[in-house]
Amino acid sequence: MNQILMPEIIFSGKNLIGKAVAHSTQTLGKIQSIFEHGDMITAQQADNIAYNVSSYLPEKEGTPGGLYFGITDLYPGLVGNEYFMTKGHFHDNVDSAEFYWGIEGEGVLILMDEQGGIKGERMFPGSLHYIPGRVAHRVANVSDSILSFGACWPSNAGHNYDTIAKNGFTARLKKIDGSPRFV
Amino acid sequence: MNQILMPEIIFSGKNLIGKAVAHSTQTLGKIQSIFEHGDMITAQQADNIAYNVSSYLPEKEGTPGGLYFGITDLYPGLVGNEYFMTKGHFHDNVDSAEFYWGIEGEGVLILMDEQGGIKGERMFPGSLHYIPGRVAHRVANVSDSILSFGACWPSNAGHNYDTIAKNGFTARLKKIDGSPRFV
Repeated sequence: MNQILMPEIIFSGKNLIGKAVAHSTQTLGKIQSIFEHGDMITAQQADNIAYNVSSYLPEKEGTPGGLYFGITDLYPGLVGNEYFMTKGHFHDNVDSAEFYWGIEGEGVLILMDEQGGIKGERMFPGSLHYIPGRVAHRVANVSDSILSFGACWPSNAGHNYDTIAKNGFTARLKKIDGSPRFV
Repeated sequence: MNQILMPEIIFSGKNLIGKAVAHSTQTLGKIQSIFEHGDMITAQQADNIAYNVSSYLPEKEGTPGGLYFGITDLYPGLVGNEYFMTKGHFHDNVDSAEFYWGIEGEGVLILMDEQGGIKGERMFPGSLHYIPGRVAHRVANVSDSILSFGACWPSNAGHNYDTIAKNGFTARLKKIDGSPRFV
């Protein structure tokens, strides 16, 4: 009672530190199918990290009114001429929004509405991005170093990865003449 | 269509920059009543800034599933031996949570549950704080420089300032022998 405590979680630079932080890793092998030429990923490359996610999930999944907080480190690289990227998802609870913000490195936030309309937003340290409900989102690293970005989303948003796994996005972000272009 | 755009909002250091950013200021005069000895604030001091809030509110207030993002700059100072602090609030939509994180300076996040139980959490650059629903929250600056902190909260949380304006918190954070203490 009436105590002044240290916070449970430290958000130091691009790292979340604390007992309650959950970690997950996606290797190139695990996300092979999201790339147009995923078959170019060799058995040797399959264990390479594509991205790491650190999350602070202080509420039970599905709790209305609660919030989650996460940091993603997305590695640089290409599969053919397609940039390393996250799987991408809609939210299960379709009206749920999310904030992303750039911490380190450079990327493109790829947004797709329910009609398949595509928009990209440049991510860089200090960029802030509001992702409204009903908009699928995926991030591509277009730099030569790790892209770190923060995220905050409702604890009842849920992740619908299936729609994207099945149908993909309506455009792919590729390195063309040295620059990111949608094709 | 298929364009790569610049983000609308830049979150640079401790500043939110962009056309859509809203600004508000609380002077000592406007928040006089929250201090035990608010009568010590002179007419001359009444126009001094207590805190500035920059907010990015991309949804209509009350929208379920949406999120808001803000940065608060809380000035240093004392009213008697009570630290400069924010008004503090519960959320109207009582189950709504909020994240705060320290950006610059040092402070204490003061949390009070519905039974009046008080807890303080140290704020500093990198501290991350989850404020669950049904917990009133206020921030005090315990340093000699500006305390900046970020916040993310649901667009249907709402602010219930009235309960705190009427009943206050059950403890006050004061500078005693040079250090913050609840009394």
